Amino acid sequence: MSNPLFAEIRHNPMLWLLLFVPVVFAAEQLKPAAHTLLFVLSVLAILPLATLLSHATESVAAKTGDAAGGLLNATLGNLTELVIALTALSAGQYMLVKASIAGAIVTNTLFMLGASFLLGGLKHHTQEYSRVNARFQAGLLLLATVALIIPSAVAQADSATSTAFLQQLSVGLAVLLLVAYGLGMLFSLGTHRDLFAGAEHAEAGEAPWPMGLALATLAGVTVLVALVSEIFVESVQEAAETFGMSPAFVGFIVVALVGGAAEMASAFSAARKNRLDLSVGIALGSSAQIALFVAPVLVLLSYVLGPAPMNLLFWPGAVVMVLIATLTAGFITVGGRSAWFVGVLLLMVYAIFAMTLYLLPPQGA
Amino acid sequence: MSNPLFAEIRHNPMLWLLLFVPVVFAAEQLKPAAHTLLFVLSVLAILPLATLLSHATESVAAKTGDAAGGLLNATLGNLTELVIALTALSAGQYMLVKASIAGAIVTNTLFMLGASFLLGGLKHHTQEYSRVNARFQAGLLLLATVALIIPSAVAQADSATSTAFLQQLSVGLAVLLLVAYGLGMLFSLGTHRDLFAGAEHAEAGEAPWPMGLALATLAGVTVLVALVSEIFVESVQEAAETFGMSPAFVGFIVVALVGGAAEMASAFSAARKNRLDLSVGIALGSSAQIALFVAPVLVLLSYVLGPAPMNLLFWPGAVVMVLIATLTAGFITVGGRSAWFVGVLLLMVYAIFAMTLYLLPPQGA
Amino acid sequence: MSNPLFAEIRHNPMLWLLLFVPVVFAAEQLKPAAHTLLFVLSVLAILPLATLLSHATESVAAKTGDAAGGLLNATLGNLTELVIALTALSAGQYMLVKASIAGAIVTNTLFMLGASFLLGGLKHHTQEYSRVNARFQAGLLLLATVALIIPSAVAQADSATSTAFLQQLSVGLAVLLLVAYGLGMLFSLGTHRDLFAGAEHAEAGEAPWPMGLALATLAGVTVLVALVSEIFVESVQEAAETFGMSPAFVGFIVVALVGGAAEMASAFSAARKNRLDLSVGIALGSSAQIALFVAPVLVLLSYVLGPAPMNLLFWPGAVVMVLIATLTAGFITVGGRSAWFVGVLLLMVYAIFAMTLYLLPPQGA
Repeated sequence: MSNPLFAEIRHNPMLWLLLFVPVVFAAEQLKPAAHTLLFVLSVLAILPLATLLSHATESVAAKTGDAAGGLLNATLGNLTELVIALTALSAGQYMLVKASIAGAIVTNTLFMLGASFLLGGLKHHTQEYSRVNARFQAGLLLLATVALIIPSAVAQADSATSTAFLQQLSVGLAVLLLVAYGLGMLFSLGTHRDLFAGAEHAEAGEAPWPMGLALATLAGVTVLVALVSEIFVESVQEAAETFGMSPAFVGFIVVALVGGAAEMASAFSAARKNRLDLSVGIALGSSAQIALFVAPVLVLLSYVLGPAPMNLLFWPGAVVMVLIATLTAGFITVGGRSAWFVGVLLLMVYAIFAMTLYLLPPQGA
Repeated sequence: MSNPLFAEIRHNPMLWLLLFVPVVFAAEQLKPAAHTLLFVLSVLAILPLATLLSHATESVAAKTGDAAGGLLNATLGNLTELVIALTALSAGQYMLVKASIAGAIVTNTLFMLGASFLLGGLKHHTQEYSRVNARFQAGLLLLATVALIIPSAVAQADSATSTAFLQQLSVGLAVLLLVAYGLGMLFSLGTHRDLFAGAEHAEAGEAPWPMGLALATLAGVTVLVALVSEIFVESVQEAAETFGMSPAFVGFIVVALVGGAAEMASAFSAARKNRLDLSVGIALGSSAQIALFVAPVLVLLSYVLGPAPMNLLFWPGAVVMVLIATLTAGFITVGGRSAWFVGVLLLMVYAIFAMTLYLLPPQGA
Repeated sequence: MSNPLFAEIRHNPMLWLLLFVPVVFAAEQLKPAAHTLLFVLSVLAILPLATLLSHATESVAAKTGDAAGGLLNATLGNLTELVIALTALSAGQYMLVKASIAGAIVTNTLFMLGASFLLGGLKHHTQEYSRVNARFQAGLLLLATVALIIPSAVAQADSATSTAFLQQLSVGLAVLLLVAYGLGMLFSLGTHRDLFAGAEHAEAGEAPWPMGLALATLAGVTVLVALVSEIFVESVQEAAETFGMSPAFVGFIVVALVGGAAEMASAFSAARKNRLDLSVGIALGSSAQIALFVAPVLVLLSYVLGPAPMNLLFWPGAVVMVLIATLTAGFITVGGRSAWFVGVLLLMVYAIFAMTLYLLPPQGA
């Protein structure tokens, strides 16, 4: 490996956590039954890997030009979440997969956006951001929310709905969401690119890596994330019991916070620098990407990788939370203006959800 | 009949379908059991009749002056839907009546509006439209949606709700909706007419017919629509089975598309001509009219025409769809600006609904 | 008592109703079983007391300076509702307490706001108001609505939810709401006071009372309200039966209208004077205050005053109504412009709710 990678590691304290990558592998060999330890170590190892993955993606995107780079960012931007969910999928832990999808949407929409508004607002009296990108991402999210509501609404209205119906419906919804996502990229990166100026993902000031290094990092770190995710997925449920957390809380809150840590660091730093367009773009863009790209890909891949096909029937409580998160984001971003209390409102809604899931008796997940 | 009617028939290829009007009557005499054939023929016959009805209404409206004409358009603008629903009502097919009401609201709000935005957006980079009329119609729709949610919400919350309660409530809601609709016309055509300039229903450029011809067409074509509707309503369920469609899909999607075809043609043509105010007015105006005028009139007329009184308790899945359609329209029309992808979003939500209803097992309707 | 109090009583016909305060006490001594009479008399007695309480609060607020005064108004502004609810709480009538909380939110959001828009709009063609305060209060309301939805959503999704879980959750939600309310005051009265200019609560033109009189009135009238409330709470259910009203209707509509009468008088008068900022502030501010201050305080005080702890699990029908009221207010206040029909829309939604509750069979409350 060449210079820029090591320069970044020296520069960014988060990357010092890379030390935990070999440690977690060693621990798994030596103490395969120490679930709580393995859980903590795997979280500590995933955080810096996600940061590296994020920077490598940005670097490749910066080199490949605007449209292709945007496309790359839009598909690989949530690679960490995707790899974790794929690991859980092939382990047949569909409840964890679904909780982590819903949790990532809610966490990015409420926590990442809310903390960005709060952190930015503590430094700047009021902040403005482009409504165009916010409304675009909120629109995509609204569409995905409809796709997540429908199976559960129909299943409640009709006790006669069969598994076969739910499975057909889920595949159909997955295809529709992917088509909508593709058309959305054509719109925002292609035909109406001019409307979205200023919401680019890449942080100015950060020099991109050379192409070779970036691609090698992308490949190598993805493998590492997959290996660590396996330990994470295996240990998370038992560790959660030790900490007294419900499985719903773990899937919804813990996995989502771990998977999104790298994007959160970028979003918060941009908000402090009064570049709220970037923060809003990262937060709502990540939500939309998980809802319209990661979730449908998981449904389709469950036919290949999973023990059985996965459908899109979510726990009704999760559906309500996704719906509320989307409506709140839609309500908040009408104005295109923010102050610290807007962040507090979003964080409070998130706190209500987190508290409810934390208190929920185990069988409720 | 005089010249303008024949001139229009020569000019408008849609009207060549008028040929199917005698064909469907002949087929019903000769092959009364050929449901699929009768269904297809009755659809082909209703389309041109609806177009004629629409043009005749516009012509009478244009002659009778602004306020009276607006009133006429507002009450007779969905005459086709009303006649089809009345036919189903007197046949006691309440499930079909309710599905067609909910379906018309959803189809006009999502499909007609979405396709207008898409078709307009494919020709024009971005398009502007007056928010005033869009918000007004969305507000009326919201009110109607509340009226449709409440019976189903209370019935779910309380297993003890009796049929008598639902019937009283439905009549009360019908009266409230009609009062709101009347006050809405007083507002938009009367006291605050100035705010609504530019959203008139009549297409410029099209010469209105003379009064006598218009009134004669209105009367004669209404009778023809009623007669063809009878064949349509009788054949639709059995034809649907042949095509493998669920009854819910037929009522929600097929009847709504057939009933609204004439308005769709006008809305799409206006959008291509960059007269998006007109498209939005037709699409949301039709939805509001069905929700606040057609639906309550059907409830009240069920006491006279139907075998038993009809209530406003809808299938919960339909209530969710109407609610989502209204919220989506409210969300979309905040900006007063459109591009092709806005249309895609609306059409995708519609596609999700159509797919769900298509896949739904028959007992679920 | 000194001059200004008597001057106000002479000036304000509402205060002539103070006559009924001694009358209701006398009646309770003489005819303790005449529930209908006692109910009517207690309503007539509460109305002027609420008006006095409101004026005394304003006077103390005006004297204590901006921030402290705002704080005082924000906590004591709904003192009447709080005292009535506390009386019902210590009588163990939790269903009435919950109905009156939900009812006050809905009544203030739909009826008080709607009637203000209508009354203002009948005098002025269109009216403008500051969107900042309206959006702020609507945001607080949205947060509170989420807190009221969650227990009921989780309880429906999970039949296994225990009473202990609901109780823990309710206390947690109460604390979060109070924190949010406190931070909201810090925001609107403190750090971002500049954005909220023009939405002050106090009516210009009305001279505040001297501090001593105001404080004495505040203390004395609060005691009187508490005493009359006791009679009101004891008589309301039996009187309701006499009038043929369901208990749900009484709690939701009657108690809310009686408790909010004083604020309604101020809001309506401001709307007529084209000071719509004030009307919107009073209506939405009162709703937010009941949802984020009165409701959580009641939950926490139920541990001290009530026979058993009270949770935040509401009747699902009430949850739907609060949600609809909040969404409607959010939808309506996006524009910052009003005309008479906007008021009609809000009042119609309220009428739908009132009618539904009125018709609801008794066991449904």
